[in-house]
Amino acid sequence: MNDRFLRACRCEPVDRTPIWIMRQAGRYLPEYRAVREKHSMIDTIRTPELAVQVTLQPLQRFELDAAIIFADILPLLMAAGIDLEYAAGEGPLIHNPLRTPADVAALRVPPAEEGVPFTLEAIRLVRRELEGKTPLIGFSGAPFTLAAYAIEGGSSRDYKRTKQFMYGQPAAWQDLMGKLAQLAGDYLAAQVRAGAQAVQLFDSWAGALSPADYRAYVLPYTQRAIAIAASAGAPVINFSTGTGGMVEVLRQAGGDVIGIDWRVDLDVAWERIGHDVALQGNLDPIALLGPAPEMCERAGDVLRRAGGRPGHIFNLGHGVLPETPPENVQALVEFVHGWRA
Amino acid sequence: MNDRFLRACRCEPVDRTPIWIMRQAGRYLPEYRAVREKHSMIDTIRTPELAVQVTLQPLQRFELDAAIIFADILPLLMAAGIDLEYAAGEGPLIHNPLRTPADVAALRVPPAEEGVPFTLEAIRLVRRELEGKTPLIGFSGAPFTLAAYAIEGGSSRDYKRTKQFMYGQPAAWQDLMGKLAQLAGDYLAAQVRAGAQAVQLFDSWAGALSPADYRAYVLPYTQRAIAIAASAGAPVINFSTGTGGMVEVLRQAGGDVIGIDWRVDLDVAWERIGHDVALQGNLDPIALLGPAPEMCERAGDVLRRAGGRPGHIFNLGHGVLPETPPENVQALVEFVHGWRA
Repeated sequence: MNDRFLRACRCEPVDRTPIWIMRQAGRYLPEYRAVREKHSMIDTIRTPELAVQVTLQPLQRFELDAAIIFADILPLLMAAGIDLEYAAGEGPLIHNPLRTPADVAALRVPPAEEGVPFTLEAIRLVRRELEGKTPLIGFSGAPFTLAAYAIEGGSSRDYKRTKQFMYGQPAAWQDLMGKLAQLAGDYLAAQVRAGAQAVQLFDSWAGALSPADYRAYVLPYTQRAIAIAASAGAPVINFSTGTGGMVEVLRQAGGDVIGIDWRVDLDVAWERIGHDVALQGNLDPIALLGPAPEMCERAGDVLRRAGGRPGHIFNLGHGVLPETPPENVQALVEFVHGWRA
Repeated sequence: MNDRFLRACRCEPVDRTPIWIMRQAGRYLPEYRAVREKHSMIDTIRTPELAVQVTLQPLQRFELDAAIIFADILPLLMAAGIDLEYAAGEGPLIHNPLRTPADVAALRVPPAEEGVPFTLEAIRLVRRELEGKTPLIGFSGAPFTLAAYAIEGGSSRDYKRTKQFMYGQPAAWQDLMGKLAQLAGDYLAAQVRAGAQAVQLFDSWAGALSPADYRAYVLPYTQRAIAIAASAGAPVINFSTGTGGMVEVLRQAGGDVIGIDWRVDLDVAWERIGHDVALQGNLDPIALLGPAPEMCERAGDVLRRAGGRPGHIFNLGHGVLPETPPENVQALVEFVHGWRA
C-alpha cells in the first residue's frame, strides 16, 4: 500500500512528498463532465455507484497519493432540514435560510447513517475498489462554513448576515454551532467507520472572521467536531482559506494536519503553527492554468519552503479550477514526486 | 489644529487615539445620498464643488481626526486611456480591458495635473474650507489593484485573468506595473503639492496573491509608487486587505503607516511588522451594523491590542457599509476618543 499520505499525516518520514488535489474529481476532467452530462450533481452524490466511479477517475490518470470521496458539504445540511436545491447552471439554492432562533430550534441532528447514507455506502464501495492500494479521505463542511451557508443561503462577499446573526443573537448562534459541530463530527466519525482512512474538515469561509471572533464564536465548535471525528481513530485535517493572519489559532482547534491556502508562505505558517503538526498545502490553483514551467517554479517554491520536513502533504490552497488542463495536473504530480530536498 | 492623526503617522504620542473611517463620505449618510440623487458618481468626483461638499459632510457630524478627499481610484485609469464607464446601479464597466502587450504599450502616463485635475482642485478647496483645523488625506489605487481592475474589467472572485497575465506575459506585466507605479506615485505627490497632508495607497486586492508572487511581481512597484509619493514630504499609508499572512512583506514596501484589515490581531500584526512603523486599523466594518454594545466590545478589543502605543490610527479594516446606522459611527468615534490604555 502507498502509505505516504498517512505517514505524512503523522509527521513520519516518507520517500516522496505525498500529493492529492482538492476537487481532484471535478469538471477539469472530460470523463467527469461525461458523467455529469447524464447525471445531476445531487444524483451523482446520492448514487453510490456514480460517486465511486467519479472518485476513482483521477486515480486512473494520475499517481495521486490519496483518493477523496466524491461528495459535497451540503447534503448534511439537507439532512438537518435545510430545504436546499442544486439549481442547474447556478449554485445551490436554499429556500429556507436560517434567520431566527426558531429556525435553529427546528434543525434536526439525525445520525449520519440516516442523513447521508449514500456517501457512507460510497466510501465502503470505494475502499473495496481501491484494494488497500491508496488511502481514502472523507470530508465534511466545518461548523462555521455550514452555518454561513445555511444563513446566507449561499456564498457571500462579506458574510454580513452570518456575522449579524452571530453578534445579534448569540444564544441562537451557540445553539446552531453546537448542532453543526455534532452533525459534522458524527458525520466524519461515521465516514471513518465506513472505511475513510483520514477525514478533512472544510472551513472555506473561516477567513471572513477576525481572529477574536473566530476564537469566541467558532473555535469551540470546530474543536468539538474535530474531537468527535478523532475519536474514530483516523487523522483529521483542518482546512481553511484566508486564515493566514491567524494560523496559530487554527492549531488550537486540534487535528493532525492543518490545511492552508497560498496567502501565507508555507515555512512562515509552519513556524507559527509548530512543527509537531503536519501541514497541507499550498499552491495557488491559478498556477495550474499554466504555463507549466511557471507552475513548476511555484510548486518548487512550496516544496523548498517545506524543506523535505516530515509532515508536508502537497496540495493546492483551494479547489482545482474547471479550466485547468489535465496535463498540468499530470506534470504537477510528477514534479512533486520527483522533487528532492 | 487637531494634529493627532499626523502625530500618530509619525509614531509620536497623542492625547487620544485618532480615528477616521474609510469611505467616511458615503452612502450610509443621508446627506450624501441626497447629493448622489442629483449627481452621478463620476460627476460628483469631477465637480470640485460637489467633491468638497461631500468630503466635508462626515466632519460636520462626527469628531473625526482626518478628512479624506472624496474621489475614486478609477479616474486615474481613465486618464491613462482605459475606457471606463460608471454604469448606474452596477459597478464600473471597462470597455477595453487590458489583455495584450499592445494594450499595455498604448497606456499613457499623463501628469496628474492633466489627468485628474478635478481631484487636485478639490483638495485645494477642501484645505481652504478646513482652515487648518483637521488634516486632509489624499489617496490613489496601488499599482496591483489598478492593474487587476484594468485587466479583469472590475472586481473578481479569484483574479484569474490578472494572474494569468502576470505568469504568462511577464515582460508586459512589468511594463504595465512600471507605468502604474509612475501614475500612482505622481498622483499622490501631486495631491500632496495641492495640499493633502497625508496620502493612502489602496491595495485592496493584494490579498489575492501568494507572498512569493507579491514579492516578485508587485512589491518593487508598490515601493516605487511609495518612494515617489514620499518625496513630496507627507506621510504615506500603505493599505491592503487579506494580507494578514504576509504583513512582514508589506513593511518592505516602505511608507510610514501600514493599514491592515480585521483578519489578523492588531497586536500580532504590529509585532510582526515592527513597532517603529505606525499601524492603521482594524475593526470589521460589519461590527458597525450593531448592536452598538457588540460594536464597542470589538472596538475595545482593537484598542486593547494597540495598548495605547504611539502610532495607532483607529480605522475599519475596509470601507464602511452603506447600511451602517450613522448613530453607530457617532458612538464609535466617541468610544475611541473616550478610551484610555
